Amino acid sequence: MSEPASEFSPGHAPVPGPARAASHLRIVLVGTQHPGNIGAAARAMKTMGLRRLVLVAPERWPDEAAYRRSAGAEDVLGDAPVLGTLAEAVADCQWVLGCTARSRRVALEELSPRVAASRAWATANRAGEVALVFGRERTGLDNDELQLCHAAVHIPSDPAFSSLNLAAAVQVLAYELRLAVLEGAAVAPLPSTLQGEAELRTDPPATHAQMEGLFGQLDAALVDLDFHKGRASASAMRKLRRLYLRAALSEREVRLLRGILADTQRMARLAGQNGS
Amino acid sequence: MSEPASEFSPGHAPVPGPARAASHLRIVLVGTQHPGNIGAAARAMKTMGLRRLVLVAPERWPDEAAYRRSAGAEDVLGDAPVLGTLAEAVADCQWVLGCTARSRRVALEELSPRVAASRAWATANRAGEVALVFGRERTGLDNDELQLCHAAVHIPSDPAFSSLNLAAAVQVLAYELRLAVLEGAAVAPLPSTLQGEAELRTDPPATHAQMEGLFGQLDAALVDLDFHKGRASASAMRKLRRLYLRAALSEREVRLLRGILADTQRMARLAGQNGS
Repeated sequence: MSEPASEFSPGHAPVPGPARAASHLRIVLVGTQHPGNIGAAARAMKTMGLRRLVLVAPERWPDEAAYRRSAGAEDVLGDAPVLGTLAEAVADCQWVLGCTARSRRVALEELSPRVAASRAWATANRAGEVALVFGRERTGLDNDELQLCHAAVHIPSDPAFSSLNLAAAVQVLAYELRLAVLEGAAVAPLPSTLQGEAELRTDPPATHAQMEGLFGQLDAALVDLDFHKGRASASAMRKLRRLYLRAALSEREVRLLRGILADTQRMARLAGQNGS
Repeated sequence: MSEPASEFSPGHAPVPGPARAASHLRIVLVGTQHPGNIGAAARAMKTMGLRRLVLVAPERWPDEAAYRRSAGAEDVLGDAPVLGTLAEAVADCQWVLGCTARSRRVALEELSPRVAASRAWATANRAGEVALVFGRERTGLDNDELQLCHAAVHIPSDPAFSSLNLAAAVQVLAYELRLAVLEGAAVAPLPSTLQGEAELRTDPPATHAQMEGLFGQLDAALVDLDFHKGRASASAMRKLRRLYLRAALSEREVRLLRGILADTQRMARLAGQNGS
């Protein structure tokens, strides 16, 4: 999103595309112990187009370490409200997701990050407020806090070493949210700007006829080189066809290869004229 | 290189399940400036079931900050070989992926983390060595380093604030790799009959060193053919590297192409001896 001022200012039209859904997504950090993690979480959010951070009872706040680790996301930190309880932080939310480090005994529906992000996007896209809640570094969310959540999301860490850093967990969820937002925006009928489209247009894929022209010249060049040395030529050509077809050559690449083959044939003629 | 664990020791049975594919995946950090990021990357890897870290020319190493930030992944740090160049770190790799912070002018095929992880898993699962390469915090990978890569992977950060932390980038890719490994383990009951597996087993993918051997001979052959005719040779070689890396050649295909090049060079010598 990255239009901090204008998007949220009164008097502006609704923001189209990715920014609109992202503006309804908030990240809530509960009882964070290390302020450096808050800064790193803000940076992770901003790289993924998320700007709404809410702090619930951080142990040390404000703190210089948070600003240092945010590395350019100071605005996210500066805009973050600091509240006393999780209940206040999610009071206006339609959907609250609690991030749990491991499968919990709490009987909440447990979602993968991908499914959670997709549902979060769907809610945010129809202007529903969504919160993703992350607990304390050591102890996570307590049971009362989990009771405020509609579902739990669990990052599938290795059970033998599940100690995901708090900011790393925020990064993974923010990444999945960004994919969901981008995919959602792609599905919506926006003017498309296909990635790589321009590049493809300037270097179009070779046509069938151009590929056959290349193979014909390659076949002739191998004969000129006496590559087959009496063996049948079909097997080598079959392998070469497969290789170059698999590479999905562009027109320009076909021209480059044919230029090399032309020089090869010229050289073979010269060797033949003079050598034999 | 870097065969830290018992998994690789002779006399051990193949590791079943997720660990098997993961044992062929390595994370390579090039020229890392802040040792804390190396520690955080090791932690990110270990939570996602990855253990093989390779360091190329870290600015400060070993360093206490790395061990502190690894928070329990000291074993991953302790097992990490420290090498001088990226070429050494990927010499035995069949597939090398370069992580780029933003879309590059380098015309490598650019994959999403999801697609990249899925292809990385597919290669690792048939015992191909795969490297995910991350560059310097500020400047990323240089162009020579990117030339060693078969494809680029780009985390879709917000273009307005794309400054993803190095360890956060490792976390996102490690997370996608874990999903791919878990999905692969769920999909492919072992021993698998992967599509084309039999063919692949008799015709293994070319290693990095074999590809470099091909490129060296191709470069020499173009000179012998006087293909460049006074122009700089770098541009043509860059395009040819890209084409053949994209094709993911097998060992046998490399031998076939080198056979053609050997005949080409022989013919060029003959033409030169007799013709000039």
